[in-house]
Amino acid sequence: MNESIDGKALVYCVGAFNTPNGKTAHGLVRFTERYEVVGVLDPAYAGQDAGMVLDGRPNGIPVFAGMEAAVSALRDAGKLPKSLVIGLAPDGGRLPPEAKASIKKALQMGWNVDSGLHDFLTNDSELTQLAQKHQCRIRDIRKTPDRDKLHFFTGDIEKVDCLKLAVLGTDSALGKRTTAWILVHAFRKAGISAEMVGTGQTAWMQGARYSMVMDSCINDFVSGEIEHAVVSAWKNEAPKVIVIEGQGSLMNPAYPGGFEILAAGRPDYVILQHAPKRLEYDGFPGYKLHPLPEQIRAIEVISGKKVLAVTLNHEQMTREEILPACEAITKETGLPAFDVLEYGADDLIALIKQHIR
Amino acid sequence: MNESIDGKALVYCVGAFNTPNGKTAHGLVRFTERYEVVGVLDPAYAGQDAGMVLDGRPNGIPVFAGMEAAVSALRDAGKLPKSLVIGLAPDGGRLPPEAKASIKKALQMGWNVDSGLHDFLTNDSELTQLAQKHQCRIRDIRKTPDRDKLHFFTGDIEKVDCLKLAVLGTDSALGKRTTAWILVHAFRKAGISAEMVGTGQTAWMQGARYSMVMDSCINDFVSGEIEHAVVSAWKNEAPKVIVIEGQGSLMNPAYPGGFEILAAGRPDYVILQHAPKRLEYDGFPGYKLHPLPEQIRAIEVISGKKVLAVTLNHEQMTREEILPACEAITKETGLPAFDVLEYGADDLIALIKQHIR
Repeated sequence: MNESIDGKALVYCVGAFNTPNGKTAHGLVRFTERYEVVGVLDPAYAGQDAGMVLDGRPNGIPVFAGMEAAVSALRDAGKLPKSLVIGLAPDGGRLPPEAKASIKKALQMGWNVDSGLHDFLTNDSELTQLAQKHQCRIRDIRKTPDRDKLHFFTGDIEKVDCLKLAVLGTDSALGKRTTAWILVHAFRKAGISAEMVGTGQTAWMQGARYSMVMDSCINDFVSGEIEHAVVSAWKNEAPKVIVIEGQGSLMNPAYPGGFEILAAGRPDYVILQHAPKRLEYDGFPGYKLHPLPEQIRAIEVISGKKVLAVTLNHEQMTREEILPACEAITKETGLPAFDVLEYGADDLIALIKQHIR
Repeated sequence: MNESIDGKALVYCVGAFNTPNGKTAHGLVRFTERYEVVGVLDPAYAGQDAGMVLDGRPNGIPVFAGMEAAVSALRDAGKLPKSLVIGLAPDGGRLPPEAKASIKKALQMGWNVDSGLHDFLTNDSELTQLAQKHQCRIRDIRKTPDRDKLHFFTGDIEKVDCLKLAVLGTDSALGKRTTAWILVHAFRKAGISAEMVGTGQTAWMQGARYSMVMDSCINDFVSGEIEHAVVSAWKNEAPKVIVIEGQGSLMNPAYPGGFEILAAGRPDYVILQHAPKRLEYDGFPGYKLHPLPEQIRAIEVISGKKVLAVTLNHEQMTREEILPACEAITKETGLPAFDVLEYGADDLIALIKQHIR
């Protein structure tokens, strides 16, 4: 188990834990290499174990009613955090007023604050002045980087000679990122060095050392930033495999995504995440999801890349339905299908292994 | 002939006129509804007619050696400009030091300054202070708008009930914008109200009233900004036809483009610009251009939209080669093909007319 990148962190999720608006907190409570999560703030579940609340399995992360309770308990446990991480993902991405008080308390204690909200903390002079005074750092993960920090596409991607996989999906909010992490960890468990290349803020918060936030990037630099992340992972880590997190879906009715990943990331193969029970595009009621074979064809026509396997999202399925659904996908597409979340990734890894140089 | 949007303008192109680095100036000298171009600055062609220099046809736009000469001549002619427009498009988009002196002179006279360089004039406090002092305006066309000025996709595009065309291309730098303007003007000449929706800085500089600059936009807002431009054009102008300028090409090896235009602009049909003599992607030597039929298939697979016709870019062709090339395209793709730059758009308009509601 490596050291976390940014050390101990308390996750702010007041009024939102175990609700859709708390999904950033949930991701951090379930898995992150960036932080050592030592607690969650939400009075609704004060005193309970965050893992029990979320997944029915204790994970030793306590939920606290508020800052005071958290600080005293964590101080006694010798686990005072270095950072407060905003675990809220409210619609619209605005910062609730009551959250600001906790952020100020954190800064006054010299803690760093990380936020993925659209409402940038660094635009609030009161907060930035507090951070300066107490010599700590506020990071707005969603903030668009300045042009002078961004990269144009160079073609260096051609030099990357390890196996490159892209985990794309037939829709958004489908588990592409989760599947990508499962693959990376399964490769490592199998003794095959693997790196994750993140393309969203949550992957960054979970510790993807090589990543960019596609939706906040200036359009002209998206390709270059993807290439730069992949090339950096390859140069610095020399892994056998690089797994690139996909974004959106190629045929989304309004937000088509993944094209720059195929073009600038130059994956050798695509792993395609799919939820058989999902009939309409996420957030677009009335827009029928394109059938799986059409989406596979679109990927292959556009990029000339081959889809190697389908990974199943078993939402709205019973455990009994999973394996028959995988068989049905194979029958329909001629591709092997796996539920790596339910059954692990060993079989998929065994399949991919043959393609490692 | 309508009034121009921003009035009389002098175009700065010192050392670059009639060279690739002067292409913004060339576009403005050939056609713009935003400015009334009254002169060009470049000592290399001082005293000559800009149209003669560029296209061998006089257009009454004089080239001047420098600011002093321009100002005195234009004052005598009663044509003093309101704006200085930077007509340079140097690689890297940096501002040459000698240009800054002319910009300062312009601001000191109270002229507005418009620039499409990557090097933002509004980041230069000396220039912004001068503009404030003399109550004039500096606009950096390429500057990424703040999030609070940007639009997310809403679905309002579904209400737009006029004919929507997208002019896409099989490569970048191929004449998509020029073809889009030719179509808009041909529709208007035929008494059919038409609006251009621009997606690049040059279209904006040429006076596309409804436009966004895709390459400078935050990725998350590209779809919403395209939708907003199309919906605004429809609401405010109630045209019979909207022509959307394409960007890049779907199968570009590094910078795939046009997907958001298909998804968020919801064109009824695509007009596809193609240069038969172009064998490799612009800027990507060694990357063979995908054959025309493959690119048409990609558009139709991804978007379900039909390509209605191919428009020819006759680069590196003799006049004698043009019509046979159009016939060859029709033979290869089953689609009608037109060189609207050489022969005008009447035949293409006649074809499209049948689809106007």
